[in-house]
Amino acid sequence: MKFKVIHEETRTKARIGLLTIGKHTVDTPTFMPVATHAALKAMTMDQLKDIGAQIVLSNTYHLHLQPGEALVKKSGGLSRFMNWRGVTLTDSGGFQVFSLPNKVITDEGVEFKDEKSGKKTLLTPEKVIEIQNDIGSDIIMPLDECLPYPCDYEYAKSSIQRTIAWAKRCKKLMYENRKQNLFGIVQGSTFPDLREKCAKSIVGIGFSGYAIGGVSVGEGPELLREVVSYTAPHLPNFVPRYVMGVGMPEDIFNCVEFGIDMFDCVIPSRYARSATAFTFKGKIRLSNRPYRLDMYPIEPNCDCYACKNYTRAYIHHLLKSNEILGTMLLTIHNQRFYQMIMEKIRHYIKINKFEAYKKQFLGEFANND
Amino acid sequence: MKFKVIHEETRTKARIGLLTIGKHTVDTPTFMPVATHAALKAMTMDQLKDIGAQIVLSNTYHLHLQPGEALVKKSGGLSRFMNWRGVTLTDSGGFQVFSLPNKVITDEGVEFKDEKSGKKTLLTPEKVIEIQNDIGSDIIMPLDECLPYPCDYEYAKSSIQRTIAWAKRCKKLMYENRKQNLFGIVQGSTFPDLREKCAKSIVGIGFSGYAIGGVSVGEGPELLREVVSYTAPHLPNFVPRYVMGVGMPEDIFNCVEFGIDMFDCVIPSRYARSATAFTFKGKIRLSNRPYRLDMYPIEPNCDCYACKNYTRAYIHHLLKSNEILGTMLLTIHNQRFYQMIMEKIRHYIKINKFEAYKKQFLGEFANND
Repeated sequence: MKFKVIHEETRTKARIGLLTIGKHTVDTPTFMPVATHAALKAMTMDQLKDIGAQIVLSNTYHLHLQPGEALVKKSGGLSRFMNWRGVTLTDSGGFQVFSLPNKVITDEGVEFKDEKSGKKTLLTPEKVIEIQNDIGSDIIMPLDECLPYPCDYEYAKSSIQRTIAWAKRCKKLMYENRKQNLFGIVQGSTFPDLREKCAKSIVGIGFSGYAIGGVSVGEGPELLREVVSYTAPHLPNFVPRYVMGVGMPEDIFNCVEFGIDMFDCVIPSRYARSATAFTFKGKIRLSNRPYRLDMYPIEPNCDCYACKNYTRAYIHHLLKSNEILGTMLLTIHNQRFYQMIMEKIRHYIKINKFEAYKKQFLGEFANND
Repeated sequence: MKFKVIHEETRTKARIGLLTIGKHTVDTPTFMPVATHAALKAMTMDQLKDIGAQIVLSNTYHLHLQPGEALVKKSGGLSRFMNWRGVTLTDSGGFQVFSLPNKVITDEGVEFKDEKSGKKTLLTPEKVIEIQNDIGSDIIMPLDECLPYPCDYEYAKSSIQRTIAWAKRCKKLMYENRKQNLFGIVQGSTFPDLREKCAKSIVGIGFSGYAIGGVSVGEGPELLREVVSYTAPHLPNFVPRYVMGVGMPEDIFNCVEFGIDMFDCVIPSRYARSATAFTFKGKIRLSNRPYRLDMYPIEPNCDCYACKNYTRAYIHHLLKSNEILGTMLLTIHNQRFYQMIMEKIRHYIKINKFEAYKKQFLGEFANND
């Protein structure tokens, strides 16, 4: 993996870069669509390639439970298994496990019961790396304790020690593996001193990139921005910085401003499934009656398959008829919309006008219906 | 519309032809995928074009209720509304209306209550033509009374008089319309004399093509074959012959043998939605456990997107994970499989080996799991 910062803005910390892994390149800042079970919801990988995505995120936790990492390995790794001709990243499963009700956290790892099969599973830092080795994703993440919001200071303080210890164990196991790239994850909830402390320790261990975890857990856009603002400066310049699970377009703009390079979120697909489309003039709910006879495309300035070929009235009709094609077209559009935002962000960083574009975009995007 | 018989087999009545409407051509025998609400289930029109479909069927009854023919007309007609660059055919709604529980049939037409809106609607032969004029499909069908199976002889005898009278009224209204092509429909249940009588009357009125209706209503493959065997000879040679709502591959082979040119059915899509794939060695249910580690494509001799890029194990995994992509890939495959059958049928008719191919295909296809 190579990462090159191509240009850093003069007024903000926003930057554009090029991430190269094998024969694939990723322009940063980048948005990663989420293929939880090695599949995008309601969209093929060819359609995802068409809308300009370059890197996809899958979930270690879900793939471990179904179909199991052995089949993914036997199939030639994640990319071949799901036919994605681009870069792949897997999370560690930490986020999913920590949101389960009956987990037991010890220094050894975290034990949980799969609600579907009833099977008890112990995830250790080592196990998480081994699973991801089998899955064969390009970028992998260590096991961390994802803290909830709000979080008790004393608990957060002791928890980051565990996250740091686990990160060391992951790094140790990865030492001989040159095929995959391990990122470090910084926790510390909403406490600046803990974020700083954790960041310094994680950076001290040394990883191929750094992620800010434990955000987008209910703290809201203001606090998210704040956490990123005081955590990002402690992450090195010459490697990618990734804010996990973000987010709404507003959040992406806020993070880019502090030099964040990578994002992932289920929002574009999830909103599509609830009939909501992203436009430059805000989100619109196409199942609503005003769109019944609307002969415009979802977003007149969009070049996606849905916008080039269909009216809002047609998509409204599909939604009213419970035709899954409605969700399919909205998914294509929303995923394209996110890639368009990233393209525009990269463009305006390049010409040193990110702040002005951010202001313009957020002003127009605020008009939800 | 032009129709040209290119070759008729020596041993059977099987024939290949070319149907030309505007700038679009259809090779016959042809299979029409069903886009009930002006949308294929779980598949885009681009994907449908890719798998070789040339003509699509939509349902007048459904489009009349939602979104209404006015919007379809305003959108530039059915093809533009749903972005299908090929030929379109709409049924008359007869089949759907006659399967409703609370309809009242008179010589005037058929009155029914929409179960969703509770609204009473009277469909007359004239209304059905007017709706289809607005929808703007290339081939349209007259209102007919679709008889159930089994059916009382006396009822069938009086019913075909109504179907014939309605056909005349439809033809009368179509007299001035040169943009659309109206087919006639032959009813008569499973009674050879009634089928003959109805066919002669309908042919006497004169239409651009002829359909055999009232089959695939529970009579079974043997009786279906029999009805087609004694009805088809009463339909003229020089126009297309269409058996409505058929069907399973076995039924298609049986009908082609008697010179049928057109078919439509929801089966490829419906089976995909219940995890069943068509292969040359029979139908397989990919959610079943034996496919869990199966590294072969659905059908090794298929060139569709699903077969070129994915293993059965991957699709099994998608089905287990409730990923809609599983249904999407199976739909693409099953629709491609039906088009492949039609391509092979046309090829073997051309070289006068249809009977031998039919025997070979049906022999191998019988091995369901």
